[in-house]
Amino acid sequence: MNNNVRLVIAQINFVVGDISGNTDKVIAAIEQAQESHQAEVIIFPELALTGYPPEDLLFRPSLRVRVDKALERLKSVVKDIYVIVGYPKGEQEHLYNVAGVVYGGEVIAEYKKQILPNYQVFDEKRYFEAGDSATVFDLNGIPTALTICEDIWHEGPMSQAKAAGAQLMLNLNASPYHLNKEQERLALLKERAVEGGMPIVYANMVGGQDELVFDGGSMVVDQRGDLIFSAPTFEEKSYFLELSVSEKNVPTSIVPPRSLLASVYEALVLGVKDYINKNGFKGAVLGLSGGIDSALTLAVAVDALGKDRVQAVMMPFKYTSQMSLDDAAEEAETLGVVYKIKPIESIYNAFMSSLEEDFKGTEVDTTEENLQARCRGILLMALSNKMGSMVLTTGNKSEMAVGYATLYGDMAGGYDVLKDVPKTMVFKLCEYRNRDYADLNKLNSNNSGCSGNIIPQRVIDRPPSAELAPDQKDSDSLPPYDELDQILEWYVENDLSADAIINKGFDADVVKRVIRLVDLNEYKRRQAPVGVRITPRGFGKDRRYPITCRWPAGD
Amino acid sequence: MNNNVRLVIAQINFVVGDISGNTDKVIAAIEQAQESHQAEVIIFPELALTGYPPEDLLFRPSLRVRVDKALERLKSVVKDIYVIVGYPKGEQEHLYNVAGVVYGGEVIAEYKKQILPNYQVFDEKRYFEAGDSATVFDLNGIPTALTICEDIWHEGPMSQAKAAGAQLMLNLNASPYHLNKEQERLALLKERAVEGGMPIVYANMVGGQDELVFDGGSMVVDQRGDLIFSAPTFEEKSYFLELSVSEKNVPTSIVPPRSLLASVYEALVLGVKDYINKNGFKGAVLGLSGGIDSALTLAVAVDALGKDRVQAVMMPFKYTSQMSLDDAAEEAETLGVVYKIKPIESIYNAFMSSLEEDFKGTEVDTTEENLQARCRGILLMALSNKMGSMVLTTGNKSEMAVGYATLYGDMAGGYDVLKDVPKTMVFKLCEYRNRDYADLNKLNSNNSGCSGNIIPQRVIDRPPSAELAPDQKDSDSLPPYDELDQILEWYVENDLSADAIINKGFDADVVKRVIRLVDLNEYKRRQAPVGVRITPRGFGKDRRYPITCRWPAGD
Repeated sequence: MNNNVRLVIAQINFVVGDISGNTDKVIAAIEQAQESHQAEVIIFPELALTGYPPEDLLFRPSLRVRVDKALERLKSVVKDIYVIVGYPKGEQEHLYNVAGVVYGGEVIAEYKKQILPNYQVFDEKRYFEAGDSATVFDLNGIPTALTICEDIWHEGPMSQAKAAGAQLMLNLNASPYHLNKEQERLALLKERAVEGGMPIVYANMVGGQDELVFDGGSMVVDQRGDLIFSAPTFEEKSYFLELSVSEKNVPTSIVPPRSLLASVYEALVLGVKDYINKNGFKGAVLGLSGGIDSALTLAVAVDALGKDRVQAVMMPFKYTSQMSLDDAAEEAETLGVVYKIKPIESIYNAFMSSLEEDFKGTEVDTTEENLQARCRGILLMALSNKMGSMVLTTGNKSEMAVGYATLYGDMAGGYDVLKDVPKTMVFKLCEYRNRDYADLNKLNSNNSGCSGNIIPQRVIDRPPSAELAPDQKDSDSLPPYDELDQILEWYVENDLSADAIINKGFDADVVKRVIRLVDLNEYKRRQAPVGVRITPRGFGKDRRYPITCRWPAGD
Repeated sequence: MNNNVRLVIAQINFVVGDISGNTDKVIAAIEQAQESHQAEVIIFPELALTGYPPEDLLFRPSLRVRVDKALERLKSVVKDIYVIVGYPKGEQEHLYNVAGVVYGGEVIAEYKKQILPNYQVFDEKRYFEAGDSATVFDLNGIPTALTICEDIWHEGPMSQAKAAGAQLMLNLNASPYHLNKEQERLALLKERAVEGGMPIVYANMVGGQDELVFDGGSMVVDQRGDLIFSAPTFEEKSYFLELSVSEKNVPTSIVPPRSLLASVYEALVLGVKDYINKNGFKGAVLGLSGGIDSALTLAVAVDALGKDRVQAVMMPFKYTSQMSLDDAAEEAETLGVVYKIKPIESIYNAFMSSLEEDFKGTEVDTTEENLQARCRGILLMALSNKMGSMVLTTGNKSEMAVGYATLYGDMAGGYDVLKDVPKTMVFKLCEYRNRDYADLNKLNSNNSGCSGNIIPQRVIDRPPSAELAPDQKDSDSLPPYDELDQILEWYVENDLSADAIINKGFDADVVKRVIRLVDLNEYKRRQAPVGVRITPRGFGKDRRYPITCRWPAGD
């Protein structure tokens, strides 16, 4: 009996819907696996042919035609290598999430995903029927089982596979990143491998898809629960290793895990890069205010796209401080992007004269602040429309949560880089980018080439201000950010009640005011651009709240 | 054995999240049912206590506490009447969608919904576990079964109930309106009642909830499959009738079904009314362009809110025709709303001077058109912010489909009244409102009090134009609306492929161009305001498309 297998994990970046282009990538990876490594098996991620998540594209009748065509192409090129690839498979009125084994010009086995996630960002029960049994095929003498993503998080599919005599588990994934997800996966795989008494090959996709970033981080844990291989996260590449299903394996290549901040930063970079590139934009343009959020957004954008594809615009008004003007200019100069200064005074005044009659006798309120933000938003959109660059917005998660942002103003744009990054983490990411990012350059070619103090220290140190009114500070209307972010994490991510948060020692009025702001501002978030999800619960598909809602804070 | 039952159907308008307020309404209806009708049983809709759909509010731990409190209140007031009411019920880590029977100070029976819809706008598998058995209780001698909404659309739950000896089926619903839904429901109930050999009491909720409008239309079909009672649609009221489960029933009150256009119009009115009122806005403001979409939106708004809560603003530019100015003024005058004229020339020019340098050497393109729309959007938002009125947008489904609208321009606002109304139906609705709406006034108090030609005939007759460029017509960039709307219905609502549509006799280039526009404009729709869903597939929760997507038209 054979105990060793030469395998390639194809950690590929697919494009949703592009079945033909994805198939090209699959074929190229197969050819490389055979030529460079004489691999016996190559493992692609879940739903590789369609990309993940295809969402309602799965309802299109031509889906089956296109997948069939892709499989015909694969069958025609695949001879003496086992190709494990994910795709949707229709049978009468049902659709399954399938892992197929292509070998010798045929699909020799198919596994149907059994555990369909329908929580957080996942809607798989909207599309798929569940399979109910293990699939074991003979991989050059090794009885090999297949599972798809969620399957491995539960005990059932592994024990089924073990009962069916499998000695190796190939697990195809489309597992999106969130904070510390790498560690969660590794702990799970170790446990499951020992339970099953067989190695698990965990193949994950990489790439940005709207709000999701798939981080790759493919790995192999052997039958003893030892990690014997791990791929870098956020990198598109095929990885070869030789694995024994019976003997102790010597770890081949273990990439040390990135720090939490490094992972988040890479997720932001990849999210922006793929959104801009996969959607065919020439580049990005953003408003640079001299504040910390736009400074970080600019750094991410340049690391994602290169300085030649990014433009920054400072749009001062009478409340803009000289410090802001100086710092914005310095940021743009350091990174080498085209930098424009476009004052909004005359535009703002034109609006206000038009509204003079209507506003007569009313107090100055947030209307005037919103108007400033909107003059800026519309200027950026005009530049975007004319140039074909997309506007990046700069709002962070704390602001999105409490509605400290202006619809059609600073929220106007195609992608919100920091949408799921709490303000307290914005500070840390700036320090990370200034201090530690140079190391990363060795790992990664997607960067600006700049290291060191990209973001001026005083931008990090000064008290945050929207500069929409005289001497305005964020702290005038919001609790301190460390307090706010803790309340938000408990309320937004963990669903704690106001009472439960108050019981942890926070002021009752503050807690109730924050919760009320979160609830009230659902309408703003509903019209917000998408942005990278980095927490276990972002303001996207994983938090579905009614706008019309009367749920008083408390209990 | 008793064969007759005195029952009340409570077709109530609940507010999502307002468990305490909804319970007040439930109690008031119970008291009225006892005092006015000596009813033996009163049937409320699905999830009456929370409103429907509560979405992720269902994850809040305080949900159970609040529902328990509400049930305690009900138990304390309910003595000698069977109260059938829907609520979410937690058992350990599971949540069920339940119909409870409250009687004599106790919950004497509970039914768990068995068929959980997870398609179109529904996500019930995200929240609930399914029940697996019938619940039959003794209703003063009549063995009575319960089902919840989707249950009745399948054969299983009815045959279970029959096997368990039930002679009466009470079906609690939260069934949203779409075109011809009333007829679908009636045909289904007739079939199911005959199958089960028992009457079905169909109780549906009424009211607007974000994109959904629940149309009521509660009814009773007896054991022979005869309709013996139907409630008016779009009306909040309790209805009494006496029903025999063995003898032939004489129909008590059958409301003739509304015409399709009347139903749609009422859905729009109720959608706007509940969105504005449940969210606590003072009123609505909208841009009146002289075109047909804003004319119809104004009529709906005034019918929903009354003329004193609606303001219209005409924002002319050099491309605005005298006809548009005249017609807009006439519309506002006819309906008696406050009407303002605010030219955008000076604002537009302020933007253009600021952009002069950037735009040097470029051609005039849609950038300049978008800028006009955005000057208008920002003006409306400023009025809205200062006055507390919400901006209604006026884009129709055809425009939303192909992206013939400007983000942060005419798409800026809180609610898009015609979002799911194809342009060809906009014309018909205008004619309906001008010609037939007077009849409706007898049925409905929610109207402007105006009848006759609210919308000037030439607004209906003139070729549609966005008036954003000299002599512009919609037909310059889009196929004729009857053709466009047919292609869109097939593509958007029925998922037909380009080839299938071309095979029906449409020009291949036109079909592919339309499909490409629909796909490309997903990013705009993602930032669009919600609006009333009236078709079986609107651009809301029932069409979930990726923005980043490479799915070429064809196949």
